[in-house]
Amino acid sequence: MSDLALAVDIGGTKVAAALVAADGTVAERGVRATVVSPDPEVVWRPVAELVLELLAAAGTARVVGVGVGSAGPIHLPEGSISPVNIPAWRRFPLLHRLAELVPGVPVRLAGDGSCAAAGEHWRGAGQGADDLLGIVVSTGVGGGLIQAGRMVGGPTGNAGHIGHMVVDLDGVPCPCGGRGCVEAMSSGPSMVAWALRAGWQAPVPAPTGVDLATAARAGDPYACEAFQRSGRALAAGIVSTAAICDLSRVVIGGGVSAAHDLLFPPLRAAIAEHGRLDFLRTLTVTTASLGNAAGLVGAAALVLAPEAYAGRGVASLA
Amino acid sequence: MSDLALAVDIGGTKVAAALVAADGTVAERGVRATVVSPDPEVVWRPVAELVLELLAAAGTARVVGVGVGSAGPIHLPEGSISPVNIPAWRRFPLLHRLAELVPGVPVRLAGDGSCAAAGEHWRGAGQGADDLLGIVVSTGVGGGLIQAGRMVGGPTGNAGHIGHMVVDLDGVPCPCGGRGCVEAMSSGPSMVAWALRAGWQAPVPAPTGVDLATAARAGDPYACEAFQRSGRALAAGIVSTAAICDLSRVVIGGGVSAAHDLLFPPLRAAIAEHGRLDFLRTLTVTTASLGNAAGLVGAAALVLAPEAYAGRGVASLA
Repeated sequence: MSDLALAVDIGGTKVAAALVAADGTVAERGVRATVVSPDPEVVWRPVAELVLELLAAAGTARVVGVGVGSAGPIHLPEGSISPVNIPAWRRFPLLHRLAELVPGVPVRLAGDGSCAAAGEHWRGAGQGADDLLGIVVSTGVGGGLIQAGRMVGGPTGNAGHIGHMVVDLDGVPCPCGGRGCVEAMSSGPSMVAWALRAGWQAPVPAPTGVDLATAARAGDPYACEAFQRSGRALAAGIVSTAAICDLSRVVIGGGVSAAHDLLFPPLRAAIAEHGRLDFLRTLTVTTASLGNAAGLVGAAALVLAPEAYAGRGVASLA
Repeated sequence: MSDLALAVDIGGTKVAAALVAADGTVAERGVRATVVSPDPEVVWRPVAELVLELLAAAGTARVVGVGVGSAGPIHLPEGSISPVNIPAWRRFPLLHRLAELVPGVPVRLAGDGSCAAAGEHWRGAGQGADDLLGIVVSTGVGGGLIQAGRMVGGPTGNAGHIGHMVVDLDGVPCPCGGRGCVEAMSSGPSMVAWALRAGWQAPVPAPTGVDLATAARAGDPYACEAFQRSGRALAAGIVSTAAICDLSRVVIGGGVSAAHDLLFPPLRAAIAEHGRLDFLRTLTVTTASLGNAAGLVGAAALVLAPEAYAGRGVASLA
């Protein structure tokens, strides 16, 4: 059996881990709900169990390293994390804890948006694109940047935050504390909140993005407008990124992108409206192809293809 | 005498050239008005004369290469240019023509925004910043990007176009054909046009940005508001660039930045309002220090410090 990476994806609601082969296939996978506790060790315990389970599942295959993508912020160079939605973890030394669990191999950490983009670039819909923006539209809006074929983490590891680009100067408040950010218009919860404020009569008390998509497909004008707004804000963030970074391709994944029949028409129209300079007109935008495995596949790429994905902006313990 | 670079700065209204030393000092400098003619050779002639004059002025010093910054678009890899404001030059083969004029040395070409940023990074206010956005606010709004200490041109050489980032989705039309771009609110002409539409009683028939600044300092509310809008739009572009690229420093030059007493207060306030994530709060924004020599100094850097400034996105003839 070929060499495997042990990949971990740390999120506010769940933690996933997998054994990933060099061709990007996920050989074995496990998921745990993220434990809510004030005690960092209580949050850590099921993560450690999951990692040890997968290590055992590797059997005689060689695990060549551990790659982790985490909800931010992450802290370089010490390899600790303070995920907004895991309050017990503030500068939790994830990299060192994983190295204690899986000794003798490289352990690497990057932001979850960067890992999702890396996954799509390495083995998904972004393959072959030298200058790629990968976007995840879900509870929040995250992203990652590939330039000249390499993942760009930036000096603090936080490059790729398309969700907090400003596309509407006087726009609505954003969870980050700012206003007019892409995330404030394009994320699933912000779309639902806007539609409810506008007058959408939701069929259930706490409607989700899936409910909103169903209503839009049935012709509800507020639901339709929420997708229009989301697509337009996303398009402005994409055009802005292409103007400043000179992109060739964009791939969009995450739960909201599953409604691409609703999201992509206004998105494409707004890209054409705003992106008028020659070098912006050749940009191609497609859906991602790895689904919710993108982050795990990208975390695996940190150790299986380090020359492209483990440069600046990635925390690393050899 | 030490080695010199022959630097050229091609703009729509004037062409400048200079001899630049390794420490960034401008030893000799000349300027010509850009000739308006439908004949590309008529536009070229005074540029060639200027270059030969400076070559002669070098005397016994060694000219080690020619660096050019040009108004865009530029075309890689053939090294031709099609400046929007020089209609006679469409894919004009500038790199080859300069190589014929100054044979035997490297000749390199980049966008004018990239060169201004490179100049400020190499020998100006951006020295020591690994991740820098250089901005020029003038008739248009241009810029250039430094990441990990190196100039980033992007695959087409067009990275750094902060002027066409979208900061106001439903905003005013921009000269690029889009709407809501930074340039549509922050450039000198767009500020003047907005103030006049709003009700500013200008003291002269065709007022400039300098007239607008004088009116703002005298307390005219429309002139003041034009600077507020300009600063806020620029701030949104800066926050967006920092969110997607993870910047540490921004330097702002160009004619409009001379009114920093009017521009910087709203700019700083809007950066604080919009840039709320931790990694955005450490960003420092200052005025540029090289004045209108930044582009020439940066063009010189293309040949005097090629490891940092002559990578991807720069056209080069050895």
